[in-house]
Amino acid sequence: MKLATYKDASRDGQLVVVSRDLSSAHYATGIANTLRQVLDDWRFMAPQLRDLSDLLNSGKARHAFPFEPGRCMAPLPRACQWVAGQSFISHVERLHKATDAKLPKSRYTEPLMRQGGGDGFIGPCDNIVIASDASGIDFEAQVAVITGDVAMGASPEEALDGIRLLMLANDVSLRKLMADEQANGLGYLQGKPMTAFSPVAVTPDEVGDAWRQGRLNLTLQTTWNGRKVGLCDAGAGMTFHFGQLVSHMCKTRPASAGSIVGSGPVSSTDWSQGYACIAEKRAVESVDNGRASTRFMKFGDTLRIEAKGKNGQSVFGAIEQEITPAG
Amino acid sequence: MKLATYKDASRDGQLVVVSRDLSSAHYATGIANTLRQVLDDWRFMAPQLRDLSDLLNSGKARHAFPFEPGRCMAPLPRACQWVAGQSFISHVERLHKATDAKLPKSRYTEPLMRQGGGDGFIGPCDNIVIASDASGIDFEAQVAVITGDVAMGASPEEALDGIRLLMLANDVSLRKLMADEQANGLGYLQGKPMTAFSPVAVTPDEVGDAWRQGRLNLTLQTTWNGRKVGLCDAGAGMTFHFGQLVSHMCKTRPASAGSIVGSGPVSSTDWSQGYACIAEKRAVESVDNGRASTRFMKFGDTLRIEAKGKNGQSVFGAIEQEITPAG
Repeated sequence: MKLATYKDASRDGQLVVVSRDLSSAHYATGIANTLRQVLDDWRFMAPQLRDLSDLLNSGKARHAFPFEPGRCMAPLPRACQWVAGQSFISHVERLHKATDAKLPKSRYTEPLMRQGGGDGFIGPCDNIVIASDASGIDFEAQVAVITGDVAMGASPEEALDGIRLLMLANDVSLRKLMADEQANGLGYLQGKPMTAFSPVAVTPDEVGDAWRQGRLNLTLQTTWNGRKVGLCDAGAGMTFHFGQLVSHMCKTRPASAGSIVGSGPVSSTDWSQGYACIAEKRAVESVDNGRASTRFMKFGDTLRIEAKGKNGQSVFGAIEQEITPAG
Repeated sequence: MKLATYKDASRDGQLVVVSRDLSSAHYATGIANTLRQVLDDWRFMAPQLRDLSDLLNSGKARHAFPFEPGRCMAPLPRACQWVAGQSFISHVERLHKATDAKLPKSRYTEPLMRQGGGDGFIGPCDNIVIASDASGIDFEAQVAVITGDVAMGASPEEALDGIRLLMLANDVSLRKLMADEQANGLGYLQGKPMTAFSPVAVTPDEVGDAWRQGRLNLTLQTTWNGRKVGLCDAGAGMTFHFGQLVSHMCKTRPASAGSIVGSGPVSSTDWSQGYACIAEKRAVESVDNGRASTRFMKFGDTLRIEAKGKNGQSVFGAIEQEITPAG
C-alpha cells in the first residue's frame, strides 16, 4: 500500500491511503489519523489500511478524491530518530579522492552513519528556505526507510524484517557549514537544514522484485533546474543495504517504531549515470580538471527527484522543490 | 509546575502533575494525556496544568496520590530532536589537555553541539542495559531543557523565551566506541546508548532565581556506587547558556516544540568540586600522573544524579540507575 500525510494545520497532519497509480486517495479516518499512530501499532492497523488500499485500487472506495502531492507533508512529518548513512561507496571514494585523504579500510566493511534532527521535515513540494545562498546549498537524492521496533543487537537479516515503508528523500546540505562541523567530529547540525520526503511512503511489496536484499533496484532521477543530472541505479551501487544500516544503528540500543534511515546520496560506480548531489560532481571535476566548476544551488533553483517502476509509473510521486530565501 | 510521565505500557506514557515537594501527584487526564500534547499546544494547556498544580500544592486536589519516581518514564519519553552541547569549557579543556590536542579558539566563542537519537529515552530508575562492559561505560550528569517552537535565526535572548521545561539527564556514553566515531567526523551513534532523564521536568519559575541568564545555578550531585564524586555548580562554569545553545541549533532551521537540548557534562573550573563524568576524571589523572587510574563503569555499578534547591529539597527528583547486561 501507499500512504501519504495531508496538511491540515496540525503537526502530524492527516493520514491518507493513496492508490497505486497515485491518481486517487482516501482519508484513513476511522482507522488512524496519523502515520505515527500506525507505526506505533503496525500489526493491528496495517491490515485495516491494506483493506482500504485494496478497495481504493479496485475503484470501489466510496469517498475517494484526486490525490494532490502539493497538499502533502512528509509521510512522517516528524520522527524521533532520523539517521542518514553513507552507503554508496563510490560517493565516498570520489569525495576522498578530491581531498587526497586516504580512505580507511573500514569504509568497505562498516557503514558511516549520523544522527539528524527529526523535528521538522518538509513536504515534497515545500520550498527549501535558506538564510544565505552563499552557504554551499546542495541536494542529496536518497532512498529512505521507516522502521518498526528493532531490537538491540539485531542482525542485518532481522533488521530487514523491521522495515515498514520506503520513501525518497532530499537531504539538503549546506556544504560550507558542514566542513567545519565534520572537523569537530560531532557531525552536522547547522549544515543540515530541513529534509524533504516524497509524497508517498510505500510498503516494500508495492515495488515487487525491485526491492530485494534490502536495496531499491530502481533508477533515481534527479533533475536540477529542468535538466536531468542523475539517472542513478539506487540498488546496484549500494554497498551496505538497509538491513545492514539498521543493524549498525541498533548495535548498542534498540530502535523504536518510526525511526527513519536514509541511504545517503545515491551514487553509481558508472559515472555516465550522473550524480545525486553536487558535491560528488564537484569532487570529480576537481580530480579531472584541477578545480570544481559546477556551482552550488542558488535562490530560485529547482530540484526534482523521482523513481519510476518497470511500468513507467512514478512509485513515490516526485519531490519538487525550489530554494527560497528566509524572511 | 512540575510534570512527570507515568509508565502505562504505552509509548508516550501518562502525564501527571507533581507537587513542589515531590510528595504527591495527580493525573492530568481531562487536560492532556501526554507531555507531547502539552508541548504541541503549550499556550492553551499549560495554564490549565498550572491550575491543577496550584490545587495540588495547596493540598486541595481531590484525587492526588503519593508520587513514586520508580513508576516514571522520562518526562518526554521520546523526542523528535535531542541535541547535546558541550557548554562547560573546563570539561573541554581538561579532555584536550590529556590528548595534547590544541584547543581551537572557536571553542571559546561557539558551542559544540551534536544530534542524538530521541526515540527511546529511559526512565530515571530504569536499568542502563549495555551489551558489553568493556566498552568504556561512562555517565554524563547534565542539565537539559525542553523547548517550544523556536524560529530559525532566533537570537540567544529570543531562544531563552522558547525554553519551557528544565530537567536533569544522564547521557550515558560508551567511550571506546565514541573515539572511533568522532574520528569519522559524523558524531556518535553506537557510542551513545539510551539517555535517562530526571523523574520530573519543571518550569523555570519553580527554581526561582536559581534560573538566571539561561543557567541553572544549583549544585549537581553525582554519586557513583554510593560515593559522591561530584558536587559541581551547574551554572557558574557554563560557558554557553541555554539560550546560546538553542540559538546555535536554530541558525539554519527552526526547532519544533519538544526539542530537548542538553548542556553536556557539567564541569567546574574548581576541580575540588569533583566530576560529572568519568572521562574528565581520567583526563585529569593522565595529565597529573601520566596515566588514567579510575576505571569506567561495570555491570552492577550504580549512579545517582540529583539537584537540591536552597530549601534542601530535591528539585527534579533523583536519577538512580544500575548498569546491567543485555539479554
